[in-house]
Amino acid sequence: MKTQKRSVPNNERLAEVYRTAAQIILRKGYDATSISDIANALGMTKAGLYHYINGKKELLFDIMNFGLDELDAEVATPASSIADPSERLRFIIASHARLVTRGQGAITILVDEITALTPAQNRIITRRKREYFDRLRSVLNELKAEGKLQDVDTTAATFSLLGMINWLSRWLRQDGALTQEDIAEQISKIALNGLLHPDSRTSHALLRVVKPTTV
Amino acid sequence: MKTQKRSVPNNERLAEVYRTAAQIILRKGYDATSISDIANALGMTKAGLYHYINGKKELLFDIMNFGLDELDAEVATPASSIADPSERLRFIIASHARLVTRGQGAITILVDEITALTPAQNRIITRRKREYFDRLRSVLNELKAEGKLQDVDTTAATFSLLGMINWLSRWLRQDGALTQEDIAEQISKIALNGLLHPDSRTSHALLRVVKPTTV
Repeated sequence: MKTQKRSVPNNERLAEVYRTAAQIILRKGYDATSISDIANALGMTKAGLYHYINGKKELLFDIMNFGLDELDAEVATPASSIADPSERLRFIIASHARLVTRGQGAITILVDEITALTPAQNRIITRRKREYFDRLRSVLNELKAEGKLQDVDTTAATFSLLGMINWLSRWLRQDGALTQEDIAEQISKIALNGLLHPDSRTSHALLRVVKPTTV
Repeated sequence: MKTQKRSVPNNERLAEVYRTAAQIILRKGYDATSISDIANALGMTKAGLYHYINGKKELLFDIMNFGLDELDAEVATPASSIADPSERLRFIIASHARLVTRGQGAITILVDEITALTPAQNRIITRRKREYFDRLRSVLNELKAEGKLQDVDTTAATFSLLGMINWLSRWLRQDGALTQEDIAEQISKIALNGLLHPDSRTSHALLRVVKPTTV
């Protein structure tokens, strides 16, 4: 899924463009947001901004795909190389939580709330979200098959996990006492305590920054 | 907090008015929703609808207050009469989850998403949400003081709980396999496993419908 059609000189800058645009759209609403608003916030000319984006009409869809691309690249893809399902779950929760905390969570909120897509765009975004959901649930099903999961419904558990993680995007703004790493760690701990049998958790591993063994 | 100024002949009907209005506002957007849309959906005349509501301008604020009134009446107030903090937490999670599942979760989504309030209205809603948050966190702090809580930050844990519960309002629409009671039970189980020490949970109690001992 390509999220932009032009060659992009700097991916960090593109990420900044999308995050800033998402913050403005959440504050002002999609309809009331102009390309000039976004250019001004970034200190760019409108012509400069068009180097990064395809225009207002495509912007919302492009931002959502960008968010889902990040989720693939930083969570789903590296997770697939982790053989042990408990370790895989731990990595997914911590890395997804860290991703949500970026840019005040604006992209995550946008992906879940804004409904101003065309039906065709909406089908694509819904399918991509569903794929991620299915991947996460399959990890829980694998743990269940190995007898490592508590007695919980894996569909309900997957939604609960996503609720805990996605909700982060809202409370970040409300409470500044915890760092991004603290938050990822706390979410992982609560979620893994809630889902895994005690003997399937290694409590020391919960306290370090979780990295995949191979990427 | 009064949510309507006129005498109301039937509270069930008022609840239906607010839930239907919330569903239409979520589908069409607040600005695009007219009083006629809501009256039509309810099979009422506009004059009949005005017996229940104060008008479009106040409607969003009234719906949010109605949602928070329900939360007080069905969750916070009965919870305050439960002496044991583990039982109180269990009741809060299950009864809040059941409340969210009503009317396709539209009121819950509205309270958390729609930002079209006046600054004065927004301050009132934010204060009410904060009061509920503080009450929930104080239950976790009490459990922590009694040594019954796992080693988690109570602020992060409170936000995680609210994320799990409020997210319900979204996935209800997506998955019809679980009943409202199943969902409340699963959420309670995952949350309590995640937060309480094993010897502070009574697993049988998790499987029955939780009711306060006195209301």
